[in-house]
Amino acid sequence: KNDRVEMTHGAGGRAMAQLIADIFAPALSNPYLAQGNDQAAMPLPAGAAGGTLVMTTDGYVVSPLFFPGGDIGSLAVHGTINDLAMSGATPLWLSASFIVEEGFPFADLDRIARSMGAAARDAGVPVVTGDTKVVERGKADGVFITTAGVGLVPAGLALSGDLARPGDAVLLSGSIGDHGVAIMSSRENLEFETAIVSDSAALHGLVVDMVNVAGPHLKLMRDPTRGGLAATLNEIAHQSGVGITIAEEAIPVKPEVAAACELLGLEPLNVANEGKLVAVVAAGGADALLGAMKAHPLGRDAAIIGHVTDDPNRFVQMTTSFGGGRIVDWLAGEQLPRIC
Amino acid sequence: KNDRVEMTHGAGGRAMAQLIADIFAPALSNPYLAQGNDQAAMPLPAGAAGGTLVMTTDGYVVSPLFFPGGDIGSLAVHGTINDLAMSGATPLWLSASFIVEEGFPFADLDRIARSMGAAARDAGVPVVTGDTKVVERGKADGVFITTAGVGLVPAGLALSGDLARPGDAVLLSGSIGDHGVAIMSSRENLEFETAIVSDSAALHGLVVDMVNVAGPHLKLMRDPTRGGLAATLNEIAHQSGVGITIAEEAIPVKPEVAAACELLGLEPLNVANEGKLVAVVAAGGADALLGAMKAHPLGRDAAIIGHVTDDPNRFVQMTTSFGGGRIVDWLAGEQLPRIC
Ligand SMILES: Nc1ncnc2c1ncn2[C@@H]1O[C@H](COP(=O)(O)OP(=O)(O)OP(=O)(O)O)[C@@H](O)[C@H]1O
Ligand SMILES: Nc1ncnc2c1ncn2[C@@H]1O[C@H](COP(=O)(O)OP(=O)(O)OP(=O)(O)O)[C@@H](O)[C@H]1O
Ligand SMILES: [Mg+2]
Ligand SMILES: [Mg+2]
Ligand SMILES: [Mg+2]
Ligand SMILES: [Mg+2]
Ligand SMILES: [Mg+2]
Ligand SMILES: [Mg+2]
Repeated sequence: KNDRVEMTHGAGGRAMAQLIADIFAPALSNPYLAQGNDQAAMPLPAGAAGGTLVMTTDGYVVSPLFFPGGDIGSLAVHGTINDLAMSGATPLWLSASFIVEEGFPFADLDRIARSMGAAARDAGVPVVTGDTKVVERGKADGVFITTAGVGLVPAGLALSGDLARPGDAVLLSGSIGDHGVAIMSSRENLEFETAIVSDSAALHGLVVDMVNVAGPHLKLMRDPTRGGLAATLNEIAHQSGVGITIAEEAIPVKPEVAAACELLGLEPLNVANEGKLVAVVAAGGADALLGAMKAHPLGRDAAIIGHVTDDPNRFVQMTTSFGGGRIVDWLAGEQLPRIC
Repeated sequence: KNDRVEMTHGAGGRAMAQLIADIFAPALSNPYLAQGNDQAAMPLPAGAAGGTLVMTTDGYVVSPLFFPGGDIGSLAVHGTINDLAMSGATPLWLSASFIVEEGFPFADLDRIARSMGAAARDAGVPVVTGDTKVVERGKADGVFITTAGVGLVPAGLALSGDLARPGDAVLLSGSIGDHGVAIMSSRENLEFETAIVSDSAALHGLVVDMVNVAGPHLKLMRDPTRGGLAATLNEIAHQSGVGITIAEEAIPVKPEVAAACELLGLEPLNVANEGKLVAVVAAGGADALLGAMKAHPLGRDAAIIGHVTDDPNRFVQMTTSFGGGRIVDWLAGEQLPRIC
């Protein structure tokens, strides 16, 4: 009994303060969190004047909580950093809200908190403020985490999903499907010859290099999470009022991921990623951008996968290896629940 | 079936986009949310240079979702605005993450979203970015919402929980216990002669008046939410390394709330509030501050409830109406689960 979360750990009294002091404070430790007020106070960073602040949030309900290549704690850091980074922002601060089911083992909570802290430290983006709620057994599923993030976009940079124009090149930073397939295989208890590991990673370092090289050629970036590459390309096409044509053979899919997708009846284009990005760039900047991406460890397998077209129907189309073609809809393939 | 949330509404495809477009976007409508990118971008407000940014987050798991005086949507706006306001900040932007249980009625989700939007508009603090996840039936309890907030503290203001000093006055903005008792009575289906209504409200307007009048006399503010006034006073005593003495007869408790507390076996000092604040102010500024608070609709019943003492034990003590005294611990009384 005493090694599990009880209702009183969410009641605002001494037990909650103790839980935060024992598990969260040491794991997430940083000077802002240590202020211990109702809110964390941070000085505006140098260069803020003239810049733009960005804010984002994601809830994380991934099941299982621990999976090959990560867990809900590291995922909640990477995912929110990535949504900030897609604007070209420097991610500055994260918040973390935990909703914990009564009876959840302290050991697992501690492992998640330490993983979150390690991911935040590695990324250089501290969790400055938090919250802890406990709900009765059977009213949640272990732990849900919501992170929000704030970042600063330097003056002069304004990427947005509505800026894709016909002729622009579409780049992808690496192989697709790794995260979703890692979750599905661990959920189904599948063992593959080659272990399939989530690609969960913070992309803001890669983004710095991309912005430096591509400059004003860069139109927009987006991370293909839920709904996979197919959903992301359709969102861009819709938002910009354009079509997109991609080449199947240009899209990196690891052989073991392709094999697992066959087995699981999944379409890699629809499977979530957590350490990949799509970029749209003016054609003249594409090669330099690709070079910069390939030079970064998280963009080693980057590729130019297609281009933006003039299409009033806003279709995403894919030319297949056999010379055929098909429409890539964001409904194709099976929907994967609780992948993130 | 078609009037309820299904798993596919959280899968990142067309159904999710439709749900956001139908329910959340119209209810929360504002130009930042409408950008539709992975993050919302906002210009730094005038006066940001030299100021300090503050960030906070809270998860909301209140049960029932709808209660006299509010619902989880308005509460998630008020609560997070208040945690920002306790620093003296101007609240600027909110994020909102929804974790929805499969089968939850659209009509209830719509009502919650509209209530959230109305609260945000009334407060002048937009929800600029959001997220929607769906978990299987039985893996959540209707809806959980996590909001995060960002605000700007003007240059020169630095309130903090560690600044209380012996001799300072302790002020309370109004009656205690209203929120927790409203939740408990609606949960227990109790009917009282006088309806007991949550005090859920955004306090940043009151705070502006307080900061203007008290100036550098003001040391800190805190909203007595979970754990009630008792927990908040103990937190302040602990953080500042002081004692606090309060007078029972000075603490406003509505008669109907006192009666309900008797019936429910609750101690008003331990019951959560959502529209009240505690302020610590140098003695010389106390009367002026009290006047400013009483002049504001949300501080009409404000009172000086006690003062800070020099006490190495950091005890919170209460003198009772009969001339006695007792220690106010943050463990006293029953713990109320899922009050916010
Ligand atoms: N899981 C967590 N990880 C890190 N810090 C946390 C966590 N939960 C709470 N905290 C920190 O502990 C302190 C107290 O949090 P708490 O939630 O009690 O404050 P509050 O939001 O003012 O109260 P309430 O949630 O009842 O409205 C804050 O400084 C908060 O940042
Ligand atoms: N409940 C909501 N209320 C308001 N806006 C929302 C809500 N849910 C999502 N949005 C908005 O819809 C857009 C798409 O959100 P989505 O969560 O799909 O993006 P993402 O975070 O990049 O993807 P993922 O959550 O799969 O990582 C964003 O602009 C987001 O702010
Ligand atoms: Mg608070
Ligand atoms: Mg995201
Ligand atoms: Mg909190
Ligand atoms: Mg994204
Ligand atoms: Mg709070
Ligand atoms: Mg999201």
